[in-house]
Amino acid sequence: MDIIVLKPTATEEDIRHIAKKLAGKGLKANISRGTERTIIGVIGDTSRVSEDEENAIKAIECVESVMRILKPYKLASRDFKKEDTLIDVKGNVIGGRKIQVMAGPCAVENRVVLVSIAEKVKAAGATFIRGGAFKPRTSPYTFMGLGEEGLEILAEARRITGLPIVTELMDPRDIGVVAEYADIIQIGARNMQNFRLLLEVGEINKPVLLKRGLSATIKEWLMAAEYIMSRGNHQVILCERGIRTFETATRNTLDLSAVPVLKGLTHLPVVVDPSHGVGKWEYVIPMARAAVAAGADGLIIEVHTNPEEALSDGEQSLKPDVFGRLMEEIRPVAEAVGREV
Amino acid sequence: MDIIVLKPTATEEDIRHIAKKLAGKGLKANISRGTERTIIGVIGDTSRVSEDEENAIKAIECVESVMRILKPYKLASRDFKKEDTLIDVKGNVIGGRKIQVMAGPCAVENRVVLVSIAEKVKAAGATFIRGGAFKPRTSPYTFMGLGEEGLEILAEARRITGLPIVTELMDPRDIGVVAEYADIIQIGARNMQNFRLLLEVGEINKPVLLKRGLSATIKEWLMAAEYIMSRGNHQVILCERGIRTFETATRNTLDLSAVPVLKGLTHLPVVVDPSHGVGKWEYVIPMARAAVAAGADGLIIEVHTNPEEALSDGEQSLKPDVFGRLMEEIRPVAEAVGREV
Amino acid sequence: MDIIVLKPTATEEDIRHIAKKLAGKGLKANISRGTERTIIGVIGDTSRVSEDEENAIKAIECVESVMRILKPYKLASRDFKKEDTLIDVKGNVIGGRKIQVMAGPCAVENRVVLVSIAEKVKAAGATFIRGGAFKPRTSPYTFMGLGEEGLEILAEARRITGLPIVTELMDPRDIGVVAEYADIIQIGARNMQNFRLLLEVGEINKPVLLKRGLSATIKEWLMAAEYIMSRGNHQVILCERGIRTFETATRNTLDLSAVPVLKGLTHLPVVVDPSHGVGKWEYVIPMARAAVAAGADGLIIEVHTNPEEALSDGEQSLKPDVFGRLMEEIRPVAEAVGREV
Amino acid sequence: MDIIVLKPTATEEDIRHIAKKLAGKGLKANISRGTERTIIGVIGDTSRVSEDEENAIKAIECVESVMRILKPYKLASRDFKKEDTLIDVKGNVIGGRKIQVMAGPCAVENRVVLVSIAEKVKAAGATFIRGGAFKPRTSPYTFMGLGEEGLEILAEARRITGLPIVTELMDPRDIGVVAEYADIIQIGARNMQNFRLLLEVGEINKPVLLKRGLSATIKEWLMAAEYIMSRGNHQVILCERGIRTFETATRNTLDLSAVPVLKGLTHLPVVVDPSHGVGKWEYVIPMARAAVAAGADGLIIEVHTNPEEALSDGEQSLKPDVFGRLMEEIRPVAEAVGREV
Repeated sequence: MDIIVLKPTATEEDIRHIAKKLAGKGLKANISRGTERTIIGVIGDTSRVSEDEENAIKAIECVESVMRILKPYKLASRDFKKEDTLIDVKGNVIGGRKIQVMAGPCAVENRVVLVSIAEKVKAAGATFIRGGAFKPRTSPYTFMGLGEEGLEILAEARRITGLPIVTELMDPRDIGVVAEYADIIQIGARNMQNFRLLLEVGEINKPVLLKRGLSATIKEWLMAAEYIMSRGNHQVILCERGIRTFETATRNTLDLSAVPVLKGLTHLPVVVDPSHGVGKWEYVIPMARAAVAAGADGLIIEVHTNPEEALSDGEQSLKPDVFGRLMEEIRPVAEAVGREV
Repeated sequence: MDIIVLKPTATEEDIRHIAKKLAGKGLKANISRGTERTIIGVIGDTSRVSEDEENAIKAIECVESVMRILKPYKLASRDFKKEDTLIDVKGNVIGGRKIQVMAGPCAVENRVVLVSIAEKVKAAGATFIRGGAFKPRTSPYTFMGLGEEGLEILAEARRITGLPIVTELMDPRDIGVVAEYADIIQIGARNMQNFRLLLEVGEINKPVLLKRGLSATIKEWLMAAEYIMSRGNHQVILCERGIRTFETATRNTLDLSAVPVLKGLTHLPVVVDPSHGVGKWEYVIPMARAAVAAGADGLIIEVHTNPEEALSDGEQSLKPDVFGRLMEEIRPVAEAVGREV
Repeated sequence: MDIIVLKPTATEEDIRHIAKKLAGKGLKANISRGTERTIIGVIGDTSRVSEDEENAIKAIECVESVMRILKPYKLASRDFKKEDTLIDVKGNVIGGRKIQVMAGPCAVENRVVLVSIAEKVKAAGATFIRGGAFKPRTSPYTFMGLGEEGLEILAEARRITGLPIVTELMDPRDIGVVAEYADIIQIGARNMQNFRLLLEVGEINKPVLLKRGLSATIKEWLMAAEYIMSRGNHQVILCERGIRTFETATRNTLDLSAVPVLKGLTHLPVVVDPSHGVGKWEYVIPMARAAVAAGADGLIIEVHTNPEEALSDGEQSLKPDVFGRLMEEIRPVAEAVGREV
Repeated sequence: MDIIVLKPTATEEDIRHIAKKLAGKGLKANISRGTERTIIGVIGDTSRVSEDEENAIKAIECVESVMRILKPYKLASRDFKKEDTLIDVKGNVIGGRKIQVMAGPCAVENRVVLVSIAEKVKAAGATFIRGGAFKPRTSPYTFMGLGEEGLEILAEARRITGLPIVTELMDPRDIGVVAEYADIIQIGARNMQNFRLLLEVGEINKPVLLKRGLSATIKEWLMAAEYIMSRGNHQVILCERGIRTFETATRNTLDLSAVPVLKGLTHLPVVVDPSHGVGKWEYVIPMARAAVAAGADGLIIEVHTNPEEALSDGEQSLKPDVFGRLMEEIRPVAEAVGREV
């Protein structure tokens, strides 16, 4: 049910006009005349009223505002599916009791470095290897990734360590090659509303890690998940990675309250990326602990054997020994909240 | 020149380590030991130092922060090109004395409606017709545009009215067909950092209207322009359309101060979209006047013959007679600032 | 009328519980059972339901959300008083056809400088002198104003030039002395929700210039005006001075769309402070023009004879000749929108 | 040392002008001429250069920007005092191994309710009782607290339970009475930059709980602490309570990364208020766990025996049994991070 609030100047003629419009859509108008405002409750199956029709109602001159009661997403909603969605990637279940840790460099740079990192994060307890072969960069003059060669290097690291791969897709034209190598396809923050890309990953049968946009509301983020799910792919993992605020002490503001909010609104698993959230390696461990305590189902962490030589995001990457410390520190926190690492 | 600020705990060994790193890049370290901090001034051609190398320096443990002095964009910078860039689209010059007004519906809906709108906005003084054939929508359940059929309808409106077309490109796979019909290719706010799309429009010879991202800084926006220009296409028009803030009384917060700031930083023309900026038709006229007074080179305005039936963005569309009033109201303001409509 | 949306799990017992609660406040519950949610429309005089009672309803476990239809402010609302409020300060009417320009230094520094600035801004056409005797400063180690001595200097400048005084009140303990000298009492952005100070100025008979808080919504700003008005002082002037966003190219983001939004919501006059809005003198003139074009009733501008020696806010102060240029440039814009300077 | 970046148009005459200005303040100019910009490094004791003088330098026409290297706060800085500040309130040490939990209602309503809440939170393990006698409210039509009577009720609850009191000061005129009753004086978010109030509490010998402003940067927050400390009172406790962002799913965005950032920048203890941070009782427990995991020294939690009847903030108050659960859930998390509750 939707609520239409009329301006104080609205006439009986205006009210009849709106009632007629609603009737044309098979809906009934329930009119309440208050002392200061008249309100129209829309009776009927308003889930069939699109956002566009809602905007068109707002365009009527006598309308002050329209309030939507129902959530605009359906498949992603906890109302629609009560039980938690579990996503099984080669035996690693995301959304269950075990907290999954995805670790690796920002970008795949070369075979030697990547394999070395993969072996070290595996030894420390990571359950996935992450790394970008296609890199979205804010400057056209920086390293944009190795492309397919990077995917091959990831595959080799997987062969050696057994860790499944999380890697980013940036362009619908690359979906074939990325889907061939990846175990989880990442949609980056800057592409959260690249709707064509969302539709594309909605049509394949691979888990998708959907990062929150830089200034996306939780509702918009769930609508982006809905985009993917609307095409048939229900294996969506949400990844909080910090939002843009006025604060400059950290790269972004990691919104950990998104974790319990999402746990209420949706059945999809939620992981947290503290590396991008804070942007400085010193803050990654405490925020990883906090993410686990808040109820996250997993972490995604940037690790590099030599951050001073990393081709991207060096300042937020952990050295392997620091990553080892992170794993040790999150273990008792996970147990404290009834989970395990 | 860049400035590296060291932590108070930095040792002489640390300083030598950094100096050696810089020397490896052909740069010299100018060390100043203050009472509270040691600072390293980087001497040499730091424009060759990439953002990645800068981040790698931040990753060094003894480094507190790195401050970049030079702007990260070059081709888009007023330092690089002093005189204003003028973009001539079939005789309509954007960036000159005349303020260009681009008007039309959010989405192309059908031939009759579009041609009618085009004729009306032309009669009122618009110099471009705008309308989307490919529409980015936040919900997968809403109208996403007519696709190529929409482009054909735009072309017909152009044949009838003579108005050149501004229309959006969302997907690199559509560049051929969009470039065939469009006179100006629009990159939407949600795609401002869709870097693959930027590279793609950088390789064609068509003006690009680059909307500011929902939460993009002016620097990031100019970096997006630099992306396009770096591939050879220097015909970029910047379009302010409102940024995301905590305020909910308007759809976005139209940042008109971006106009004078950009006029200082870049030679590229700047247009303003008050329709998306405010999101309610009642506020469009005063903000259009303000944009012209602030120094904008053009406006882009949503107009629909029947906003109550519009398939998208009805609440922010002007009826043709209101658009006529807008044109009348901006005319004396344009004259007051030495421009014409 | 308010709308209470229940969780899908709400029982008939829950509904009866809420209906009983409302009945206790003399209100009736209008229950609508939708397919996905039950909604309770609250019938009766909900203006008597306080924000606290609304929050208490939100605390009920079966309640998903509460939507308020009526605005929380009354005296400040255009619904309550249709015609524009005009504030006459010694013959200078704020809110009428003439745009009032308040100019002067950030802080009163000494007699010679202030009188010189006052004479120059008067010559250029300013109608008020502004200057702080009590200065809110972010650092405890900076100049905090001359106090009463500063007020005396302002009074002398008024004697010499005839310009009425706008000056800031920071502390309820200073109200006596400030009210004695000031013609308009300014409440600064950082004190917009200093509720004790608001109540204090609500009890005197002097116009109050209420600056928008750094991150205040328009609704909160109008509630602050309501605070003042609720104590009897209806002479409130709203002053937009920029809001806090992620953008760092300007000191704040001047929200000019607040001007038309306020013109719709309230009858109070609205002035704009572009100096604090942008924070750099180069951008002040274009934003002053834009403010006038957007419909502002006045401007407040920082002017200093020697910004390089100003004791505060030098970087955003105009030299008198630049201020003269500002006055010349806003004059035709004012005429273009049917106003005068 | 500060860095002055000149515009490309700066002349030798300009450089001499600045060098002379610096010499007048006892500072030396270290000039570096790069290919694109000239930079002046300021040599000498720049801590004596005030923010105002810095702004005056920015006002010089040839200056593009000024970068400050040193932090503007001194007493609050970890550089100034290495070891953690411990604040002992009647034997409860804030900043030590034990996590202090301050619990109680938003506002003191009456004796019976408050004493009952105090007894219940004590039984659950809280170490302080909180409650407002003077309440800052956004509406002038809501309950503003009992004033001194509320303080007396708090004192009685203290007599009965032994829990020290945390309560808010809003107005410098109330400092005598509040200081008489309170064990910790709270400065609310809306008063974080009420500079007169800060100076006032700086002159007494009582711990101050300084809440972060709604849109305050960490730097501004530490400057507010510096204000208090500059007057002699070094017992400042910082309280993160959420910042204002575009997200509307929570009342504010709780910025937990502020905890590790502050632990690096300052020696002052840091507590977290998840109740105001999220604004809904359902999210309070997970965010309390996360705050402890992030390294907070304490929590401040709203508890009410009957949130549905609370006179303020009912929707974010925990019932005593839920608060008991919170205490049980944070205990193992505290142990996991080497702390105790």
